[in-house]
Amino acid sequence: MFANRIINVPKSFIREILKVSADKSIISFAGGLPNRDLFPVENIQMATNRVFNTEGADVLQYNKSEGDPELRAEISKRYKSIYSLDIPVKNILITNGSQQGLDLLGKVFLNEGDSVIMEEPGYLGAIQAFGVYKADFIPVPVTEEGMDTAQLKSALLNKKPKLIYTVPTFQNPSGITYSNENRKAVADILKNRDLYLVEDNPYAELRFEGEHKKSFKEFLPEKTILLGTISKTIVPSFRLGWIVAPDEVMEKLLVAKQASDLHTNYFTQRVVCTFLKDYSLDDHIKKINALYSTQKQAMIEAIKNYFPEGIKYTNPEGGMFLWVTLPEGFNAMDLFNRAIEKKVAFVPGDPFYTNKTGVNTLRLNYTNSDEHAIDAGIRRLGECIREAL
Amino acid sequence: MFANRIINVPKSFIREILKVSADKSIISFAGGLPNRDLFPVENIQMATNRVFNTEGADVLQYNKSEGDPELRAEISKRYKSIYSLDIPVKNILITNGSQQGLDLLGKVFLNEGDSVIMEEPGYLGAIQAFGVYKADFIPVPVTEEGMDTAQLKSALLNKKPKLIYTVPTFQNPSGITYSNENRKAVADILKNRDLYLVEDNPYAELRFEGEHKKSFKEFLPEKTILLGTISKTIVPSFRLGWIVAPDEVMEKLLVAKQASDLHTNYFTQRVVCTFLKDYSLDDHIKKINALYSTQKQAMIEAIKNYFPEGIKYTNPEGGMFLWVTLPEGFNAMDLFNRAIEKKVAFVPGDPFYTNKTGVNTLRLNYTNSDEHAIDAGIRRLGECIREAL
Repeated sequence: MFANRIINVPKSFIREILKVSADKSIISFAGGLPNRDLFPVENIQMATNRVFNTEGADVLQYNKSEGDPELRAEISKRYKSIYSLDIPVKNILITNGSQQGLDLLGKVFLNEGDSVIMEEPGYLGAIQAFGVYKADFIPVPVTEEGMDTAQLKSALLNKKPKLIYTVPTFQNPSGITYSNENRKAVADILKNRDLYLVEDNPYAELRFEGEHKKSFKEFLPEKTILLGTISKTIVPSFRLGWIVAPDEVMEKLLVAKQASDLHTNYFTQRVVCTFLKDYSLDDHIKKINALYSTQKQAMIEAIKNYFPEGIKYTNPEGGMFLWVTLPEGFNAMDLFNRAIEKKVAFVPGDPFYTNKTGVNTLRLNYTNSDEHAIDAGIRRLGECIREAL
Repeated sequence: MFANRIINVPKSFIREILKVSADKSIISFAGGLPNRDLFPVENIQMATNRVFNTEGADVLQYNKSEGDPELRAEISKRYKSIYSLDIPVKNILITNGSQQGLDLLGKVFLNEGDSVIMEEPGYLGAIQAFGVYKADFIPVPVTEEGMDTAQLKSALLNKKPKLIYTVPTFQNPSGITYSNENRKAVADILKNRDLYLVEDNPYAELRFEGEHKKSFKEFLPEKTILLGTISKTIVPSFRLGWIVAPDEVMEKLLVAKQASDLHTNYFTQRVVCTFLKDYSLDDHIKKINALYSTQKQAMIEAIKNYFPEGIKYTNPEGGMFLWVTLPEGFNAMDLFNRAIEKKVAFVPGDPFYTNKTGVNTLRLNYTNSDEHAIDAGIRRLGECIREAL
């Protein structure tokens, strides 16, 4: 009875992860949750009341599929101030988080079997969204510098991918950031190809140190699609994200958005717009980064203290995740089962690959545990690894 | 570059309609907007503040894909009180309005070319949503009694539709309500077929007179999928709806929901749940129905006064729309262009048919204009019709 696209899609790993995280006795480095203690509850509440008091019933009516023009103007301003990018408001479409951005891109671009280049390891929500449209994934590895350009070139030899998907800054799951040189090299390879590069960018503003990197849009202005979200910098429950796309793509996205759900919650769009106008997002993000930086440092220290020699891990300048590589031949899924018994959770690498299982890599989140829990959890995890070795 | 599914989908008529409606000098019977003057702004604001004060940061975090269990329990209770239906909470999935319900059903059920029975005329948002998945539509006419059962039988002779789509109460666009006898007759025809009946039910509570009809779920308990929404009874901008589906369908819908946008805005789910607990929705709906009843009556009176003889129209016991049938051979699209010049708007019937153009039918909305505007607008429209005859 069901469509081919849905028959073989397994239940989301994210979902199973969140179930595990819900057990309070487990120290969880598994989720991708921002730290709730930093949500700007009071300011959001004040912005909400201001919206009710000044806009009344108007904010409760149906609205435009594109999203609130004033909110889109705020988003455009931020692209200008952080990346010096000029993004016209007409090229911004408000979505239900960037996950819907991925779904709409799949809907608009992918016929069954169309190729998509996916960084490896890559964001499992993107694998899931494009997987529903039966994409043919071409994985290209990321290294500490960014996308492996030799492998990118060979991936392009025989296939004609329509999309290339990247999280070039503080990547989920690896924490890796593409260098400016790597971005330029990737763009040079793609320059004359008929495809769009998707720059999914939820974490870039969570930078504890170093300088902002250049957007791919600078190198591939006509062929870059940007995805953004407030989920990591303001609040996730509003499900508010956006797509920036060239005119010809925007027209199709808008049709897909209408057919998908008419428009994104307009009330919370207005709340976020008011929040952005009335308060300093920069000041708020400074607070987030101060805490996350401490938590990341605590995790790095704990790894140094408790993990055996020969375990590799990334040490990003921002974002929410570390990526751990166990010795060759080690299965992170087995370690996961062992770790759950010791009441500590992480995400084994498997779901971040499109064509591999039993990998020796795993993702650790440090934003949603305090320094004490990080120390205790990494100690337990270190014990599991030692026992398994 | 684009997927086949999106290449030929025209821009939404809804969208074009909303553009026309935006011109303040036009009296618009075109939109499907509820009347903003009745939005319970004050109570929604109080419920919102209560949510902030009692739940704080928790309401701003990521949440479950299924939706808030307490809100789903409230929805279940309402099915019990209005339709005497026992709907377990686990069979309710919260969506971004019922439009997303339609999209998820398309995603989960439809391979390219799969058949869908669509009532004719039928809701254009459903035609659009299923159209994106390249459904093969089988139109079956609705009469004043409901679906034409002879034509339904013959539609089932040669094809194996996966879904049958209905808005059986105060149908959009016609205002028609299927009688209980018709519902039973339709259910009897479908009983041993391998398909699901979709009962999309946004308007049933907007009943000014008469008794609630039975849900198809009573007649086809295992094979009925219900769609619901708060857009017409509380507020539309929250984009809050739901699907009720059997276990085996729910499992697939949940996978599709995760891949589509992880979950619906949790903050506004909690606001609506609190609103439902703290205030009487019944009292609120009474106010809506008192006004809409007056507006519908005003439109019926104006039609009697200003339309020439021989124009047929429906006179529903509730909902938001009247359906007008012009004399044979008359093109409602031509009338639309003439009407816009006279500063009055409606929706010509064309977009409500899957395989016809230049039809002689049109939809009138009466909920979003006051009695004075209704009288003036229908007078202008009557003049247009007389001139064209």
